[in-house]
Amino acid sequence: MIDCGEGTQTRFARCGLSMKRVGHIFISHAHADHCLGLPGLICTMSLLGRTSQLHIHAPQELESYLQAAMKLFCPNLEFEVIFHAVDTTKHQLVFEDRSIEVWSLPLRHRVPCCGYMFHEKPGQRHILRDIIDMYEIPVSQISNIKAGMDWTLPDGTTIPNERLTTPPSPTRSFAYCSDTTPLPSLVPMIKGVNLLFHEATFDQANEFRARQTFHSTTTEAAQIAHDAEVGQLIIGHYSSRMRDEAQMLAEAQQIFPNTILADEGQRINI
Amino acid sequence: MIDCGEGTQTRFARCGLSMKRVGHIFISHAHADHCLGLPGLICTMSLLGRTSQLHIHAPQELESYLQAAMKLFCPNLEFEVIFHAVDTTKHQLVFEDRSIEVWSLPLRHRVPCCGYMFHEKPGQRHILRDIIDMYEIPVSQISNIKAGMDWTLPDGTTIPNERLTTPPSPTRSFAYCSDTTPLPSLVPMIKGVNLLFHEATFDQANEFRARQTFHSTTTEAAQIAHDAEVGQLIIGHYSSRMRDEAQMLAEAQQIFPNTILADEGQRINI
Repeated sequence: MIDCGEGTQTRFARCGLSMKRVGHIFISHAHADHCLGLPGLICTMSLLGRTSQLHIHAPQELESYLQAAMKLFCPNLEFEVIFHAVDTTKHQLVFEDRSIEVWSLPLRHRVPCCGYMFHEKPGQRHILRDIIDMYEIPVSQISNIKAGMDWTLPDGTTIPNERLTTPPSPTRSFAYCSDTTPLPSLVPMIKGVNLLFHEATFDQANEFRARQTFHSTTTEAAQIAHDAEVGQLIIGHYSSRMRDEAQMLAEAQQIFPNTILADEGQRINI
Repeated sequence: MIDCGEGTQTRFARCGLSMKRVGHIFISHAHADHCLGLPGLICTMSLLGRTSQLHIHAPQELESYLQAAMKLFCPNLEFEVIFHAVDTTKHQLVFEDRSIEVWSLPLRHRVPCCGYMFHEKPGQRHILRDIIDMYEIPVSQISNIKAGMDWTLPDGTTIPNERLTTPPSPTRSFAYCSDTTPLPSLVPMIKGVNLLFHEATFDQANEFRARQTFHSTTTEAAQIAHDAEVGQLIIGHYSSRMRDEAQMLAEAQQIFPNTILADEGQRINI
């Protein structure tokens, strides 16, 4: 999960999602609208009987607040909450498991802030069932074949792996950049991601407000998406001053046509 | 305002209420569902340009959390947040102004906890315009007459105040008791209030759960209302285990017929 604003716990039920499946939460920065939901989420996880660890990756500033909140509201947790301080000034690996890598993306906001990039790791090659059967390759060897191994027949002939398998499915990637002034330095880090969420707090007419508050405009977000040649851009984090989201979308699409507006409860296939 | 759960700030807009009009917040106890909305509310008040003081009356436990939250999320407030520690073991006056008194109501829960009783102060007597005109009482004397003064005519005759005025409107009172085991000691403190909110976390069949968790049942809440001879009882704070609110209402009404169910956004005239 990325960020956790006030009321997040109630959205799980509304969206039909399970809190149990959340193992890692990545927090961009210690502003109220990005992390006030953490104590309530942790309390509710506890009420629901959670026992597995919860990892929170966030700027160091958040740790003392989170500890004060947990001490008061849920002093007897049955599960561990493990805080990982993220250096928001560096582009580095902050988490990986068998299937993904998560990288920090240094952002520029009024407080220490970073985005996160999620990279799926390449999967295994897909075996060609008919060919496997034809060469009578035993089941015990299938995982080696999937991993790229060639096969040698009894007569010594080598069948190259490319004849036994097809390449793994393409990997997917998602970058989340909020809150930030537009940063050209992001472009090489997020080059070619399938989906980019980039904040667009203001329309272009309010560029001066964006500068004052360390936010981005629609046009600026779209320019980053264009320069980074991403697959799709999703904009959001609109200021309450912005009344016309359709106009914000149109502005972004002028620069980067494959842009959509973020909406609560929305699901996007990558 | 009484208590401030997560998401309270969004309810203001939804209910068409203004945060500006909130001067005092009374917190019953430092459990997440009763106070996690405070930091977000304070941040949003700040964004909306508040300059007037905000008073928070709460058990002492809450202060260090609130300070940690404000230090992180809104370090440069343009208004003062003044914390008043409430002794939850005492029934005493915690606030008064020209029109109301607020008294603490000691409750028994898993952590220090108190309810609050709001007593309207008696208003002034209502002048009888025709009589005032008849005796040619000058405007400068009206406030004295409203305050109960008699009037002396030029010939020395005294007109008693009861002939010049009618009694003030009846005062109204509201008591809020949540979260708590049922406490007969509350009865004399809330005797005859117009409206009582009393938690009823469980139905009577779950009395054992109520005892385990220091909560009340429908029947127990209704018994308190009956014994205190209140005008109306409103029950709420239902456990998520409780699926049939109509049945909970029926249980309470068996003991105290003038019971209603609390509902989000509900307005009740006293």
